[in-house]
Amino acid sequence: MKYRIEKDTMGEIKVPANKYWGAQTERSRNNFKIGSSSSMPIEIIYGFAYLKKAAAHANCELGVLSKEKRDVISTVCDEILDGKLDDQFPLVIWQTGSGTQSNMNCNEVIANRAHEISGKVIGKGIKNIQPNDDVNKSQSSNDTFPTGMHIACYKMIVEVTIPSIKKLRDTLQVKSEEFKTIIKIGRTHLMDATPLTLGQEFSGYVSQLNHGLKALQNTLPHLAELALGGTAVGTGLNTPKGYHVLVAKKIAEFTGLPFITAENKFEALASHDAIVESHGALKQLAVSLNKIANDIRMMASGPRSGIGELLIPANEPGSSIMPGKVNPTQAEALTMVCAQVMGNDVAITVGGTQGHYELNVFKPMMAANFLQSARLLGDACVSFNDNCAVGIKVNNERIKELLNNSLMLVTALNPKIGYYKAAEIATKAHENGTTLKEEAIRLGYVTPEEYDSWVKPEDMIGSLK
Amino acid sequence: MKYRIEKDTMGEIKVPANKYWGAQTERSRNNFKIGSSSSMPIEIIYGFAYLKKAAAHANCELGVLSKEKRDVISTVCDEILDGKLDDQFPLVIWQTGSGTQSNMNCNEVIANRAHEISGKVIGKGIKNIQPNDDVNKSQSSNDTFPTGMHIACYKMIVEVTIPSIKKLRDTLQVKSEEFKTIIKIGRTHLMDATPLTLGQEFSGYVSQLNHGLKALQNTLPHLAELALGGTAVGTGLNTPKGYHVLVAKKIAEFTGLPFITAENKFEALASHDAIVESHGALKQLAVSLNKIANDIRMMASGPRSGIGELLIPANEPGSSIMPGKVNPTQAEALTMVCAQVMGNDVAITVGGTQGHYELNVFKPMMAANFLQSARLLGDACVSFNDNCAVGIKVNNERIKELLNNSLMLVTALNPKIGYYKAAEIATKAHENGTTLKEEAIRLGYVTPEEYDSWVKPEDMIGSLK
Amino acid sequence: MKYRIEKDTMGEIKVPANKYWGAQTERSRNNFKIGSSSSMPIEIIYGFAYLKKAAAHANCELGVLSKEKRDVISTVCDEILDGKLDDQFPLVIWQTGSGTQSNMNCNEVIANRAHEISGKVIGKGIKNIQPNDDVNKSQSSNDTFPTGMHIACYKMIVEVTIPSIKKLRDTLQVKSEEFKTIIKIGRTHLMDATPLTLGQEFSGYVSQLNHGLKALQNTLPHLAELALGGTAVGTGLNTPKGYHVLVAKKIAEFTGLPFITAENKFEALASHDAIVESHGALKQLAVSLNKIANDIRMMASGPRSGIGELLIPANEPGSSIMPGKVNPTQAEALTMVCAQVMGNDVAITVGGTQGHYELNVFKPMMAANFLQSARLLGDACVSFNDNCAVGIKVNNERIKELLNNSLMLVTALNPKIGYYKAAEIATKAHENGTTLKEEAIRLGYVTPEEYDSWVKPEDMIGSLK
Amino acid sequence: MKYRIEKDTMGEIKVPANKYWGAQTERSRNNFKIGSSSSMPIEIIYGFAYLKKAAAHANCELGVLSKEKRDVISTVCDEILDGKLDDQFPLVIWQTGSGTQSNMNCNEVIANRAHEISGKVIGKGIKNIQPNDDVNKSQSSNDTFPTGMHIACYKMIVEVTIPSIKKLRDTLQVKSEEFKTIIKIGRTHLMDATPLTLGQEFSGYVSQLNHGLKALQNTLPHLAELALGGTAVGTGLNTPKGYHVLVAKKIAEFTGLPFITAENKFEALASHDAIVESHGALKQLAVSLNKIANDIRMMASGPRSGIGELLIPANEPGSSIMPGKVNPTQAEALTMVCAQVMGNDVAITVGGTQGHYELNVFKPMMAANFLQSARLLGDACVSFNDNCAVGIKVNNERIKELLNNSLMLVTALNPKIGYYKAAEIATKAHENGTTLKEEAIRLGYVTPEEYDSWVKPEDMIGSLK
Repeated sequence: MKYRIEKDTMGEIKVPANKYWGAQTERSRNNFKIGSSSSMPIEIIYGFAYLKKAAAHANCELGVLSKEKRDVISTVCDEILDGKLDDQFPLVIWQTGSGTQSNMNCNEVIANRAHEISGKVIGKGIKNIQPNDDVNKSQSSNDTFPTGMHIACYKMIVEVTIPSIKKLRDTLQVKSEEFKTIIKIGRTHLMDATPLTLGQEFSGYVSQLNHGLKALQNTLPHLAELALGGTAVGTGLNTPKGYHVLVAKKIAEFTGLPFITAENKFEALASHDAIVESHGALKQLAVSLNKIANDIRMMASGPRSGIGELLIPANEPGSSIMPGKVNPTQAEALTMVCAQVMGNDVAITVGGTQGHYELNVFKPMMAANFLQSARLLGDACVSFNDNCAVGIKVNNERIKELLNNSLMLVTALNPKIGYYKAAEIATKAHENGTTLKEEAIRLGYVTPEEYDSWVKPEDMIGSLK
Repeated sequence: MKYRIEKDTMGEIKVPANKYWGAQTERSRNNFKIGSSSSMPIEIIYGFAYLKKAAAHANCELGVLSKEKRDVISTVCDEILDGKLDDQFPLVIWQTGSGTQSNMNCNEVIANRAHEISGKVIGKGIKNIQPNDDVNKSQSSNDTFPTGMHIACYKMIVEVTIPSIKKLRDTLQVKSEEFKTIIKIGRTHLMDATPLTLGQEFSGYVSQLNHGLKALQNTLPHLAELALGGTAVGTGLNTPKGYHVLVAKKIAEFTGLPFITAENKFEALASHDAIVESHGALKQLAVSLNKIANDIRMMASGPRSGIGELLIPANEPGSSIMPGKVNPTQAEALTMVCAQVMGNDVAITVGGTQGHYELNVFKPMMAANFLQSARLLGDACVSFNDNCAVGIKVNNERIKELLNNSLMLVTALNPKIGYYKAAEIATKAHENGTTLKEEAIRLGYVTPEEYDSWVKPEDMIGSLK
Repeated sequence: MKYRIEKDTMGEIKVPANKYWGAQTERSRNNFKIGSSSSMPIEIIYGFAYLKKAAAHANCELGVLSKEKRDVISTVCDEILDGKLDDQFPLVIWQTGSGTQSNMNCNEVIANRAHEISGKVIGKGIKNIQPNDDVNKSQSSNDTFPTGMHIACYKMIVEVTIPSIKKLRDTLQVKSEEFKTIIKIGRTHLMDATPLTLGQEFSGYVSQLNHGLKALQNTLPHLAELALGGTAVGTGLNTPKGYHVLVAKKIAEFTGLPFITAENKFEALASHDAIVESHGALKQLAVSLNKIANDIRMMASGPRSGIGELLIPANEPGSSIMPGKVNPTQAEALTMVCAQVMGNDVAITVGGTQGHYELNVFKPMMAANFLQSARLLGDACVSFNDNCAVGIKVNNERIKELLNNSLMLVTALNPKIGYYKAAEIATKAHENGTTLKEEAIRLGYVTPEEYDSWVKPEDMIGSLK
Repeated sequence: MKYRIEKDTMGEIKVPANKYWGAQTERSRNNFKIGSSSSMPIEIIYGFAYLKKAAAHANCELGVLSKEKRDVISTVCDEILDGKLDDQFPLVIWQTGSGTQSNMNCNEVIANRAHEISGKVIGKGIKNIQPNDDVNKSQSSNDTFPTGMHIACYKMIVEVTIPSIKKLRDTLQVKSEEFKTIIKIGRTHLMDATPLTLGQEFSGYVSQLNHGLKALQNTLPHLAELALGGTAVGTGLNTPKGYHVLVAKKIAEFTGLPFITAENKFEALASHDAIVESHGALKQLAVSLNKIANDIRMMASGPRSGIGELLIPANEPGSSIMPGKVNPTQAEALTMVCAQVMGNDVAITVGGTQGHYELNVFKPMMAANFLQSARLLGDACVSFNDNCAVGIKVNNERIKELLNNSLMLVTALNPKIGYYKAAEIATKAHENGTTLKEEAIRLGYVTPEEYDSWVKPEDMIGSLK
């Protein structure tokens, strides 16, 4: 590989000739060989692109950066956002906990690419755009990285997570309507209980996701607060007057999202409770989705020796010889994602507790876990939706069989023949392995016609009015 | 001990003669010898007292319970709420996961105590009030226990947790004002950084708690939803029309809290996402409090060989021979509580994921962990507030010493003598272990007067406008 | 209440007249009103009793304590161990993180009770036995508390947890033997799979617990290491030569357990990895037990509309009207305990990470969580064993029905009639809701006799040789 | 892109023409678009390569596979192990929870590449090697995936994690020796305490890692147990006699690691307690490393306004203007990794609890988290070692200053002038901000010579003998 020489305050260092990054990025690559390279989520880099562009605009508007510099910086930021420079960010999550080196990676790439755009050759000639003085103007790693985190996390939530969960929620809502007349045996403690409709059962899932979405929405205002303008310790040292409000406004404009400047910059650098808060809502959704996916796979179990009330789509060969062995693979993927989100919540919690004085230095780890959770939950909901939920069908025969065999229906006879006779019927049916109807008639307590007119599951599913 | 005989559908069983509970409570005592007895939180029993009273009133108003029965049931519920019957609830958390046995414990105690109030002797004579038919009318364990949970948890949050956190928040706010002119060295990565005021530092803590309180408040509407009226599987079987709305209204009236009937009873029995959601906010507060307590104990470390910027009250003998060894015991208690809350969050998460079909059977465990977290956080905040935060004093001399020794102040010279000369001064001071002023003068770059007029930390603490 | 005056270096304080504790205990009561009183586990107090007695003996043997003092201290320690002084330890978990105040509680109680034993009146006369100089001789809170923790935790593990798990393991082993000829349908992905015996299924549970017990045993040597002798920072300042080894030997002698002095006292004070390590094994057992209890309750689900392969004992009324609704309440208690242990593991982990310099100050929280887990797992295993596992019965008819209905048995025909004909049989049976045998004969591929002689589940359960 | 047509039991599907994978892999790609592609860890693929080769050899030796087939399968497996086919495994972690699709990915790639090696063109001609019949012979997804997991995890532990931790442990051991005469102030509760040597402090870290390594070693025998031979449900259906033992022997031979066949195959498929167990030890190491890294960064804090006892290497520009601002970036990376491992532990725990009947379907998630933890811990220890620990230097002057200023040294005067006079000296020094020596002389209790000969920190560091 060919190299060029870059310099920083520590001296010279060789950098791959075809890369825009500079000395500090290269040092980080060498000093942090932890896990696979380039693990820093690209969404954070894009968050940086938004904020670097916004800072350039705000700096220009406030008179501390020329229009020319603003424009060339903006151009490179747009290239980053177009995904054209994705291979210029080789750093890992496991670097300095402030994310300083990824901030410098952005500064260096923007400066060198700007140099090139200006018609020069990287590594040669005086840089018009300085990484620190221009690209990082009115900024510090300590306020840029949390800003990049919030932009990336907020965008992921509103662009991936929420729409995906809504998609699944909508499908479950449709199913709930579709199944509203299908009466089935209820189960509590996993044991047979009084009946309900399959639509009612699914309405519970819809309600869970609605509550979860509301919980997630509730956290967004905190996540919309941006640290930018706080610079090194939260005081805003070296920023022009009005900058912190203006730069947030620019970010809001460029992203189309309601970002605002954080009401307290000291909190915004030293703790990441907003990340803890929003991820708590993601974890709640994971809890809900785990329950939903579990129920569906249990109801689809069988085909012969399980519950067998639902039929789920066969997306891949299950058993080549056994028809009907349709493994609930989408439920499995989704519940694995849920477990991951629960684990990520603890990683984020642990990171969140350990801020010291003016800075929390678990930033990249917290952001990476958050983005993984938000992405996986979203993707898994779409996958589960498209490949499973929309295709859920009902095994009506089986549902009726399980319902009619159930002994719980005997409760319908209480008002007609009294509690004790009803209990006797159930006990006999249980002992003899017969149906309630058989025993009821055999014992002479009801006629077949009476049984049929009195024992109607459709009268037992209530409706709370 | 003397016993009487009680009966249920499984036969006779001996019950302590002086206790109001009946056969099912006694069976549970025998069958679940797990951990110490009576571990079921008393707050849940009180929650039951509210709901049993409310159910009696609603049942009466809807014509399915007599006024006489309503009144005697209400009387016993009031006795429970007055704490007069605390020793009548011997069951443990680790029972059936629906809490059925604690529901029966309440039903039995109320029925037997009502029997006694009616002038009869327990265990003798026909019961006017039947545990199942009267006390449990229009109810099931499956909807009462989650209702009792929500009442208990909601009350704990609004009566203990929130006021306690606000108390500490207010103290920190007062301190933030008090310390607003005290300029100190900032620290990032635990390393010396640019200055800020101690008041600014404390304002970050206030902001964290404000955000945490808001997050907690956001979860309360979900927690205010009550399962009551759903009965066994959520359909509301065996409840009179209008009951579910009315009984929630009664509970709201009796507790003075904004409880409403759950919008979806299937969710309310089968999952406890509301508990997961509110506890997520408690965990967030634990994260914040851990950071705050950590900072304070680090700043109070010493007295000679630590940071020593703050002085905390001496509440107990530290070292008998070493004055000034004031251990940060309140911070230790508080951070231990925070760790507990983080653990409880995982227990609640795990319980929340495992609902099956129409019922989640991790109810008592989830409720107990929630109540412990809410209680401990509240108590610990008050303890930390009263015994530490209000008494925090500043070691002004030490703060000034650390500030003035710092090399970071050199940045103030940049605009006057240029970056390179400023850096030279700092490097020399670092090498020689001298002050910036000494080196600045020695190098001939500034006069003492210039130094004093140029290097003013008070000009470096910004204020974001 | 009546009070007496006690003094310490901070001055006078009123103490309940009928209590042995002194000024420092009383201050802690007042300063740490967090959660319910006396929450410090009594097992830790007993651990202190062992170590105070051992220290008295070692100090005497090494010539720094008189025989008279040794004897009276030992007498009080024995009273504590006999449970006679349980009401003398009012402090909470949430105190100083070193447990100093519980150490002082022990010192004060022992000194005052010794005073009384010597025929004097508490609060009057010169104390023969001084709390600090005699009872605490050659000790510090910093080495006593972790020693008390280890004694308490080790004893709980070997006296409660391990025997209880072995009890359940043995029952499952007996069941595995009992069920070794019962062939049933296997289930993977919750879907029907090839058969195995119920005994094989249970053998997996036995193997899990055996591995878990081995894992727990592996951690005990670390837990057997005692900090005592390290005193304040681990250097052993103010201890006589040979003391640390001797005092551990005494503790081993008094407890009958293989305690030894920690190989490194600095670790033993500043971190509690031994607690983290052993609790990790408890968590592993919780994972195993959760799986086992889940399987059993799913196999016992029904009675009509679930799996219904197993019958579990009815310990309490399930549904008064529905026979056979035997709720798996013991499985529910056990799985709630498992979730608690998983949560406790995180609390312990978080506490374990945060040692600073020479001391970890999350000691009481870590110990309390450990003891709760070890106790609850033990108790819950015995409860589950006695009230569920030993009484598990088989629903042979149901097992056969599910097995014979299964389509997986068709694989037995492959070698006889070829894969494609076998698959055709299964597909037809699936489509028509018929049995394999019916379709096999109808299609003319086999005779009834051939079917019966070729399709033998007992030939499909293998045995790995 | 060019495609070819592949078929499976569900019909035809287009597959990229230049890839070896087949229909089932392609279906999985389409059905599981969750997170980034190819997220299934390559180490698991390599684990499969070992086991497919071993199975081919065992099958051949037991007479059910020809030598020709064995050899060509082995050749492809070796190519996989050489990393030549890394781009042939596009599947994600979030697929079916049994990992079936990755097993099929391996089978398909091996079969098609074998086809090519045999001189044929992929997608044309009859396959000599069938993915299911040959490559997967005597196997099932259900026993291969856990076998691949164990091979991958075991190898990672012994090849990456353990050597890396040992490397750091050895460095800390060297430092402990190097620092054994450096006496410093001890700190408990973060407050000044009696002195110890820096070498003693570091010896605690060494002891933690030694215990952690032992704990990790203790878990390896469980991890060495392989599921292979259990096939679909653990019975070993369709395997030749002796196969399970032989195939494990082959794997042991090919990997050079002590793998053996699992003593119970039902456990080995249905639960992954071995993964839970070993990861528990990784989590313990994370707890230890977090403590160690925290201590080091606190001791290196400053340069002027922190503790400043240690000097760590400057690997990257800290502050360009402030010399001595050497951020503890390696400690930050390491502690972020520790937090990740703690989170991963919960994900693994949650996955481990949820096995159902004969199969746990959280396999890929559990394996991926385990491998990430094991890799990151190893890499981060090496990075921390090479870029921080080996370069730790001592600021002797600062250590002496903090020690000599400390008031704790006054305890050395107790035996000479009595407790009360000593305490008076300390109190005066504390009040006046003077040194003990100054006050001792001023009060007339000692002469300067006496002070120097009596107050010797080197006599206070004990040594436990």
